Amino acid sequence: MIGVFDSGIGGLTVLKALALAFPEENFLYLGDTARLPYGSKSPQTIRLYSEQIMNFLLQHQVVAIVIACNSASSQVREDSYHSIPVYNVILPGAKAALKLSSSKVIGVLGTRATVQSGSYEKTLKSLDPNCEVFSQSCPLFVPLAEEGWIDDPVTNLIAFRYCQSLIAQQVDTVVLGCTHYPLLKSSLQKVFGSHVALVDSGEALVDILTQDFASGKLKKSSQKQRHIDILVTDFSAHFTHLAGQIMLPLVADSYAVTDLK
Amino acid sequence: MIGVFDSGIGGLTVLKALALAFPEENFLYLGDTARLPYGSKSPQTIRLYSEQIMNFLLQHQVVAIVIACNSASSQVREDSYHSIPVYNVILPGAKAALKLSSSKVIGVLGTRATVQSGSYEKTLKSLDPNCEVFSQSCPLFVPLAEEGWIDDPVTNLIAFRYCQSLIAQQVDTVVLGCTHYPLLKSSLQKVFGSHVALVDSGEALVDILTQDFASGKLKKSSQKQRHIDILVTDFSAHFTHLAGQIMLPLVADSYAVTDLK
Repeated sequence: MIGVFDSGIGGLTVLKALALAFPEENFLYLGDTARLPYGSKSPQTIRLYSEQIMNFLLQHQVVAIVIACNSASSQVREDSYHSIPVYNVILPGAKAALKLSSSKVIGVLGTRATVQSGSYEKTLKSLDPNCEVFSQSCPLFVPLAEEGWIDDPVTNLIAFRYCQSLIAQQVDTVVLGCTHYPLLKSSLQKVFGSHVALVDSGEALVDILTQDFASGKLKKSSQKQRHIDILVTDFSAHFTHLAGQIMLPLVADSYAVTDLK
Repeated sequence: MIGVFDSGIGGLTVLKALALAFPEENFLYLGDTARLPYGSKSPQTIRLYSEQIMNFLLQHQVVAIVIACNSASSQVREDSYHSIPVYNVILPGAKAALKLSSSKVIGVLGTRATVQSGSYEKTLKSLDPNCEVFSQSCPLFVPLAEEGWIDDPVTNLIAFRYCQSLIAQQVDTVVLGCTHYPLLKSSLQKVFGSHVALVDSGEALVDILTQDFASGKLKKSSQKQRHIDILVTDFSAHFTHLAGQIMLPLVADSYAVTDLK
């Protein structure tokens, strides 16, 4: 079983990409909805909450942990936790961006915490010291995605306002540096134009996990009837409804609330 | 000293109104920024967090507690806590709305949690069974206020979308049922028109506390040099900056972080 966590439901875009790519794996998803959003919290608090969740996932015998939350990925940079491999979204996103970019002028959209941490910029520059990186925080994107205002004129307007600084820098590739943002992909593609590549963390992680399954770093399980279980730390009918929408065409086997104990 | 709390910085609109009205009182403000927003959390979680904060304020010898958070006010309806008077924003807001309304067709804007709790509707109907109440949740208003997009075309557009159902019902008075919303007052007044009265919780609370000081229920202190101390559960430079802006023309004596212990 692979453990996937996020502060809320944004990480479901990652869960869905992984679950579609690896149809014989079990998944346990933990959305820390009682304490979301992480994007506005301090590094110390984000680190503490992430460790609590990773300990919880270890108790459930996961064989790998995927941090499907960019704010948490900025604060948990280890490759493993108590000998279990840990995947964060920063390195796969950075690698995918460099692969897609011709000009090496790369944009990053993220929450305030992710942008302030400079994680993408540092990672991109460590992989290619010649690349140029421009970042923009977009605090309204998560609530817009959670309102379900997808492909909506208001969302297009806000996307245009946030993205114009990156457009002015002529980026050719943009990392969607928050796992909620793929939900707004159609607005973002409209704003940037089709010549700009958008990097989705879920898709980038699929590439990395495919390699690790092939190399044997991760052991494949082969469940005839695999399970996708979704846990949240606080129940909300709105989030459960939205989660169902995001997961389509997949359907989770269970939704439940946990207090992380 | 009067204790005031909120999930974040929205309650500062209430603190400011009280601090301007009662210039000889000390105030201790607690913003639970590590766990904001409360608006999307379950009733049980909001109740638990509120009790933790009230216990914390009691340890600091406050003589009254003002719940400057509508989501928390929906879950803490007591008049007192361990013999200390507790003021929530629901009853003062409801009383003020009924006083201002001629048609008794009243609108309520709030977070998802506040609207779902039905607190305003129940309170308004208990005060005047003949009034009509229409509610609308506005999940984007808090992040818009926190972005500082005040009197902004995007905010006007979103305000129009949220408010049109209330406009269609011809409300003549609207309760700003979240302490962040007074920050968006100019957009809301534009959308509703000047013939619709907007009820600000801070101003409504000033009326109630003035009565309780006059009746002796609350004892006046008379500090020559009064203190306004602001505590948060998680530090963020953005929030501290925004807090300073909201409090103007007042200036807080201190900003500090606490873990509520």
